[in-house]
Parts: sequence; C-alpha cells; structure tokens
Amino acid sequence: MRLPPARLRNLSVALLEKRGVPADSARLQANLLLEAELRGLPSHGLQRLPLLLSRLDKGLANPTTRGNGTWRRASFLSVDGERGLGPVVMMDAMRVTRRILKETGLAIAAIRNANHMGMLAYYAEAAARDGLIGIVMSTSEALVHPFGGTQALIGTNPVAIGIPAAGHPFVLDLATSIVSMGKINNHAMRGLAIPPGWAVDRDGRATTDPHAAQAGAIAPFGDAKGYGLGLAIELLVAALAGSNLAPDVNGTLDDIHPANKGDLLILIDPSAGAGSIPALAAYLDRLRLSRPLDPTQPVAIPGDGARARRAAAAKTGIELPQPLFDHLTALEAA
Amino acid sequence: MRLPPARLRNLSVALLEKRGVPADSARLQANLLLEAELRGLPSHGLQRLPLLLSRLDKGLANPTTRGNGTWRRASFLSVDGERGLGPVVMMDAMRVTRRILKETGLAIAAIRNANHMGMLAYYAEAAARDGLIGIVMSTSEALVHPFGGTQALIGTNPVAIGIPAAGHPFVLDLATSIVSMGKINNHAMRGLAIPPGWAVDRDGRATTDPHAAQAGAIAPFGDAKGYGLGLAIELLVAALAGSNLAPDVNGTLDDIHPANKGDLLILIDPSAGAGSIPALAAYLDRLRLSRPLDPTQPVAIPGDGARARRAAAAKTGIELPQPLFDHLTALEAA
Repeated sequence: MRLPPARLRNLSVALLEKRGVPADSARLQANLLLEAELRGLPSHGLQRLPLLLSRLDKGLANPTTRGNGTWRRASFLSVDGERGLGPVVMMDAMRVTRRILKETGLAIAAIRNANHMGMLAYYAEAAARDGLIGIVMSTSEALVHPFGGTQALIGTNPVAIGIPAAGHPFVLDLATSIVSMGKINNHAMRGLAIPPGWAVDRDGRATTDPHAAQAGAIAPFGDAKGYGLGLAIELLVAALAGSNLAPDVNGTLDDIHPANKGDLLILIDPSAGAGSIPALAAYLDRLRLSRPLDPTQPVAIPGDGARARRAAAAKTGIELPQPLFDHLTALEAA
Repeated sequence: MRLPPARLRNLSVALLEKRGVPADSARLQANLLLEAELRGLPSHGLQRLPLLLSRLDKGLANPTTRGNGTWRRASFLSVDGERGLGPVVMMDAMRVTRRILKETGLAIAAIRNANHMGMLAYYAEAAARDGLIGIVMSTSEALVHPFGGTQALIGTNPVAIGIPAAGHPFVLDLATSIVSMGKINNHAMRGLAIPPGWAVDRDGRATTDPHAAQAGAIAPFGDAKGYGLGLAIELLVAALAGSNLAPDVNGTLDDIHPANKGDLLILIDPSAGAGSIPALAAYLDRLRLSRPLDPTQPVAIPGDGARARRAAAAKTGIELPQPLFDHLTALEAA
C-alpha cells in the first residue's frame, strides 16, 4: 500500500516516544528510516522499526543516551554508545567532532556499543551538506565469505563517502558484499532464484537457491578487491572502536543481544585543503554529460539515483507492505 | 633473463646518483622499484626507471627536494612536492606526520606536484611495520570510464591500506580499474585478446582487442561500486591536494609534462583506539585456515601473495626482459 511520508513519520515518532525516546531523538531515528524508504532502500527502512522497538522494550537500546565521547587524542574521539540509538549516537559524534575541525582539519570518532546505524548515506550526506567531507564505516554480523573461501566470516561492512560539490553533493554508500542479505531474503519470500555468484550454501557450494544462501554466505563485491576492502573495514573498525570482529558480532538483526559491532566517522574540512569544490562540481557534470553505453541511461554520479527516487516518492508516497503497516498501527494502538 | 636483486639495485642507484639524486633518496627510489619486481608487479618496477631518468634529465623531476610541507591545521599537512621523486616526497611526508600522532591520533598529508608514487603497498606496509595504520591514495591520467559510460574520464586511482597485525601486517593495494593499462599493454605486446568486460574502444564499444582498448577506456572494477570508489578517490585527492582532475592530469606516463596528479597519506595511531592488534592477527589466521572454495587454494589475506612471491624472487632472482636490461646497462655505460 502507498502511504504519505508524513503519516509514517508521525507513526514512527509516536512509537519511539512511547518508549521514552525524547522528541528530537525520535524525529532523527524516524527520519533516518523514512529517508531509506524514500530512496528505495526498504531493507534499511521501516521494516527495521519493530525490532528496534522490541530492543527498546528489552533494554537492549537505551532511549535517552547520546553516547559518551572521550578525546583520546586531539583528533581522536572514542565513543561508548551506551546502547544508544545508532543515529542519535552518530549525529552527536558528528556534532562534537566537527567543532574541532577549524583547529585540526580532520577528526575521527570511533564508536562501539551503539545500535544499528541504518543507511550510512544519511550521515555522509549530512556532512557534505555542511560543507565537510564525511567518511562513515560500519561492521555487522558475519555474512560474507572471503574471496576464495566459503564460510561467513566477514561483515557486510558498508562505507559511505560524502563530498561537497556546488549543486548536489557526491554521496557514495556501498556494502562490500555483492548484495544485501535483505535482497536474498526478498528473493526467498517471492520464491525467486538468485543469480549465480551471489552466494554459497552452508556446505560452501555455489547456489542459486535463496533459502540455501540464507544459511550460507554472501560473496564479496568485486572479487579479490572488494573482499580486501571489506576486510580492511572489518579490521579498521575493530582496531579503532574496540568493537567485536564479525564472527562475534550480534545485535543488529536480533532482539536478544546488545549490539557489539562498531562504527567510524571521519570528518575532513576541505577548506584546509588546496583544492576547489566548484571544480569538482564541473567535473561531475562533465561525467553526467559524457557518452553513455546505453543511450537511454545517462551516466550517474553516486547520489543521483537516490535523489531522483526520493523526489518521486515524496510526491507519490511510500510503498509499504500491508502486513508491516498493520503491525505498526497495531503497536500504535496497543 | 633472471638477475640477482643486488645487481639491479646497484645499477638503479648508480643511474639515479649520476643524475644528482642523493644516495639515500636514490636507494629509496631504487628500493621501491625493486620491491615491485620482487612482488611480481613489473608494471611498477624497473620498466618505470628509463622514463624517470629522462624526467630527471629534463628537469621534470627534481633530484634533491623532499617536498615542502605546511601544517594548514594541527592534523593537516599540505605538501608541495616541488617535482620531487614520489617515494622521497611520500616518505618525508610520513616522517613529518607520524611525529604528531602522539598528540593528535591521526593526520593527513595532501601532496601535489610529486612524481609517480609507484606501488602504494610500499608505503602502507612501511606504516604498518611501524605500528601505524596507513591509508594511501593516488590519482592518475584519465584511463577509466564511468560505470555505464564509455569515455576515459577517471584515473586508475589506487588505494592501499596497511594495518599492523602481530606476525604479518595486512597490506591491501588495489587500483579501482578492473585491470591496469600495463596488463592491457602486455596483452597487446604478446598478441593476446583481452577478456570481455575489461575495456571499450575509442568509440565506446566493448572490445577484446588490446590495441583498441589502448585507445579507449578501461572498466572500473566491481561495476557501480568500484566506479563509485574510484570516483570518490578522484574527488578526495583533488579537493585536498589541489591537484588536477583526471582529464587534465599528465606526467606519470610521459617525459614531457610536470606530474600534476595528487596523493594522500592518512596515518592513524591504533594505540589511540580501543581495539586489540593481537585480536586482529588471530582473526586473520582464522580466515587463512577457513575452508577454501578450491581445496588447493587456501584463503589468502591481502599481502600474503606478495610476501610469498617476494620470498621466492629474493632467492631465485628477478626476471627482467632482456631489452630493458640492455637499455639500463647502456645508460650505465653512457
């Protein structure tokens, strides 16, 4: 069913506030989920809300904390998320780190013990719209096998990079898995085979059966290179945040365990650099106008597609599965 | 022909010293090229030396400068490479930035006007062996087409990441193109077709003809994700180093123009973080020992393959094309 964003936003805020989340934090968490829906990323949208509400009910998510940051060095903020909501802890870390950029030019916040960050593009874009370069990385439960391997030992380890450009910012957001487990779940639900190369089954054999893939492991994107990148993110986050490595991560897909993955935010003030932001914008426009492989598909810059989908959905509404909407309205009435 | 590394090292040092390069800088530049040969990366090895010598002869490379760094902010070093040799400028930037890590926890050096950096793994590994996390990025001439595009508008934009781990460090080094132009040149030389998906010709049509590819554009690795990553590196380097964007880059493949690409070095002191380096090492060993897809091919960690090839070549010698060796010895005799 198709619903107006405002209805879903108010519903989400109300459900969060009922569990003790302050109004501004509830709006932020709801906004993050809504933005994912608007951009056509339902795996990071409202289907995450029931789990989050259950985590609040069970004390696995703390409704009020913004996390507790300690400056371990002049440019290095170490954050104990104190089981706070992911976006609340991350945006507070951004608020704190951005203050020192005039002095240091760059800063890092290394976050442990925060709940799921959701769509990382949200934070990278927030930084870029503020005139800053933002690089965000997260780890996750072990879902990805090494290149040449068969066992799920690495997280999906997304990275997002936001760079200001006159006009629209550059906003890259990619998981280092070839596909999300959400998409494999979706194929299973709809009874569709998955393409070869996406996954192996629990015995490490290549499979196109989404159910077998759910019990197995997802491939890294881009063969050895994407594997290396995902593994680098795994190590960087664990080394700096003091979070768990993938085989010992829990708490972003369940309502049983505390969330013990980690998250990094690197902020850079481009005004400390020697380059020109308008020159970046002109270059990106040159790419957009360059000759496409398929004449009907212009060359896109990361962030363009999400922006177009967002603009369309803001007008036409958000498509939500009826059972999810029913579940949320039942929780509202409870 | 197969030659002892010491012979090639002495030859390279002598050729550089003859052109006014001080002994320590000549050893560093020669070592970088030798390390590439030892690791089986001849595209970044001694075949680069004749061009570099010509650049020194023509004043496009300055034999003596180490670059001129200015602290624009407490953690942000802006470096004018002053046409210096790439490894000399980079290693000096590392020496300067590492000094402030005890205070700041992380630092960035943004470098413009330096000559070709060569194999970035060299610097990432140097940082990791020093107990630091090192992230290195470079831009290049426009050789790569956007995902869904056809024109060479983006550099091959490599990134290297070195992370200390008890035992062997993690050393990732990848170009964001699906393959190097060096490899395409090699196919052309040997009269071999290139695999589908590597490149398009000058009219933007998919090709398996290496000669057509030389005049066209290379694909990014990993489809849209690898494209996004390569483009992010393009923008980050230009914004922070003040270097040129790919379509206006020259000087790493010719001996006509100054080198106007850019390079970034990010150093992080993991002792500022909350994680455990021994835990990383144990995790990497778990990956190495995990079940491989092909029982004869154990799962490898980035850096493992290069280390094994290096150990073998150190014993058996470096395989160099006879014409290249003849050219270098002729220069030595000149």
